[in-house]
Amino acid sequence: MNTFPYHDLLIFAKTAFQAIGCNDTDAQTAANVLLAADLSGVDSHGLARLSGYVRLFKKNRINTTPHIRIIHESPSTATVDADGALGLVSAPKAMEIAIHKANTAGTGWVAVKHSNHFGIAGYHAAMALPHDMIGIAMTNASPLVAPTFSLSRMLGTNPMAFAIPAASEPPFIADFATTTAANGKLEILQRKNQLAPSGWIQDAQGANSNNPNELASGGALLPLGSDREHGSHKGYCLGAVVDIFSAVLSGANYGPWVPPFVAFLDPPNNPVGEGIGHFFGAMRVDAFRPKEEFLQHMDNWIQTFRNASPIHPNQPVQIPGDAERFAKNERLEHGIPLVPKVVDDLKQLSEELGLNFPG
Amino acid sequence: MNTFPYHDLLIFAKTAFQAIGCNDTDAQTAANVLLAADLSGVDSHGLARLSGYVRLFKKNRINTTPHIRIIHESPSTATVDADGALGLVSAPKAMEIAIHKANTAGTGWVAVKHSNHFGIAGYHAAMALPHDMIGIAMTNASPLVAPTFSLSRMLGTNPMAFAIPAASEPPFIADFATTTAANGKLEILQRKNQLAPSGWIQDAQGANSNNPNELASGGALLPLGSDREHGSHKGYCLGAVVDIFSAVLSGANYGPWVPPFVAFLDPPNNPVGEGIGHFFGAMRVDAFRPKEEFLQHMDNWIQTFRNASPIHPNQPVQIPGDAERFAKNERLEHGIPLVPKVVDDLKQLSEELGLNFPG
Repeated sequence: MNTFPYHDLLIFAKTAFQAIGCNDTDAQTAANVLLAADLSGVDSHGLARLSGYVRLFKKNRINTTPHIRIIHESPSTATVDADGALGLVSAPKAMEIAIHKANTAGTGWVAVKHSNHFGIAGYHAAMALPHDMIGIAMTNASPLVAPTFSLSRMLGTNPMAFAIPAASEPPFIADFATTTAANGKLEILQRKNQLAPSGWIQDAQGANSNNPNELASGGALLPLGSDREHGSHKGYCLGAVVDIFSAVLSGANYGPWVPPFVAFLDPPNNPVGEGIGHFFGAMRVDAFRPKEEFLQHMDNWIQTFRNASPIHPNQPVQIPGDAERFAKNERLEHGIPLVPKVVDDLKQLSEELGLNFPG
Repeated sequence: MNTFPYHDLLIFAKTAFQAIGCNDTDAQTAANVLLAADLSGVDSHGLARLSGYVRLFKKNRINTTPHIRIIHESPSTATVDADGALGLVSAPKAMEIAIHKANTAGTGWVAVKHSNHFGIAGYHAAMALPHDMIGIAMTNASPLVAPTFSLSRMLGTNPMAFAIPAASEPPFIADFATTTAANGKLEILQRKNQLAPSGWIQDAQGANSNNPNELASGGALLPLGSDREHGSHKGYCLGAVVDIFSAVLSGANYGPWVPPFVAFLDPPNNPVGEGIGHFFGAMRVDAFRPKEEFLQHMDNWIQTFRNASPIHPNQPVQIPGDAERFAKNERLEHGIPLVPKVVDDLKQLSEELGLNFPG
């Protein structure tokens, strides 16, 4: 596996987005968001997806010159029509609106319709941190998940992210799919020809399966909790809330109508809304209590949980965001590793777009 | 098991709250919230807890004549000092403030400190529904849950609830602990002398346990997801977010400092805040899109999910809130069943307080 300097890959991604029509600012934003995934170790959501975005553009399913605008608002809320934009571009714009609303109203909440895949949710939530705000980001996605007792795939992996600032400690950043395992974890097992643990997947008849390729044969991912006895109805609730906040509030497609990310699958021909939906929140901590008090207590919260007695001395209790921060420090210094399949894919994309892939 | 008419039990609970000093209005509110749990089939959070509240009052840990007040606010937020109130009283007051804020700001968000156990979260979230708002309620609780990799109990079962209105369909009401199993489920197994499923509990060494009494020997409940491979770090994130929103935003105790509900255990003697904390939200749906559009699409969402192909024809896919609504209809008609242990406990309480237990 080769590694590549972060800045080389960032420039490459930016030029790719420019090549499909993004202006300089949007291309830079999209590249920043995309590479944030590679930097954080969430390899499934970074450069591995770049050619997927380009294929959607070529099918006229992404608009790289969108007129992103507020279509409905109140002092603390806005609904944004992303006009078919890359989610990598519309999501940071929507989060900026949420932050702007929070500046005056204390909190800001933005629902987005007619968008596309927005990369990693944690990037958007973390935009609130420099403003001493708590950030929240969520998105719906194409249906791969069967609710409890369901044979049908009705929900996406529908991630939610929460970013919470601290004083001297690194921030708390939780970013997770509302399923037992994210689809990216299945892709890793597929590449390695390994079986999946029980409790991640059901087959086309609704029985437990260990085949990481089961989704290609009508299977489904399971909500967080795996089965009813272990709380899968709670994971189903979480995925449903993300779907409703992202799409029923905004006017996007929801549930089984969410268009697929892959260009070779057509969107449903009876849409109930426009594109996919996101939901963002920003809460000023000093809208609740003096800022310094909040930040000091967050330091104490983080230190207390980090120092909880571990079961195994060599496996300490983690604070959400630790793993991604370690990966980022490591990859900024030593480069971003890309598997050969992704490198080949990016080289082919470079040829198509008339670019040079670095290295 | 005997059953009792709802209204008899409601009046009994109200007189009990009056007997410990609540005024007429607060006693009625507390009784309404408490009995809502029994009506919904969440027996662990209803009358079974009444004597627990009274014991906390007798230890001067509940203030039945509180001065509940806003101590910090912005257009869309408020922080409430519950002054040691019953959570059954402070939570509906805080939710009313959230709804009031949402009327003008589009959304309202209220953090509460110095409170006590607030009954079922879903009751408070559902207060938003008649206002065509989405309601959110969460609370922290005394530490029974070990984060992923932790030997120590650091978090409560920290429930979250979401109530979402629809047009002609009953509302979507999700209310769940952020653990694999709620503590009430262990209590049921204890009474029946049955083993718990694997994945619910760890023992004092951090190993999986099937003993429903394990918490008495230093064991812990597990976050939703059960173990790292099945996403327990996500349940840990959810429980942590509930803890931080409820207590670090409000100035209540968090993590291992949350005071226990049971009167025979003293609160930690080095508190980091006051009492336990809650967090509430109300979002006007017409702050995002025209109300009728939202409600019609929620009907479609609910009908679509309810009609998803089931794995077993006799076990249809449920909408969050279905089970509680069925229980409520059944129990309003046929009475509320109480196990003999709870009846004995309530009879003893009646004698102590000089009341008559019905039946």
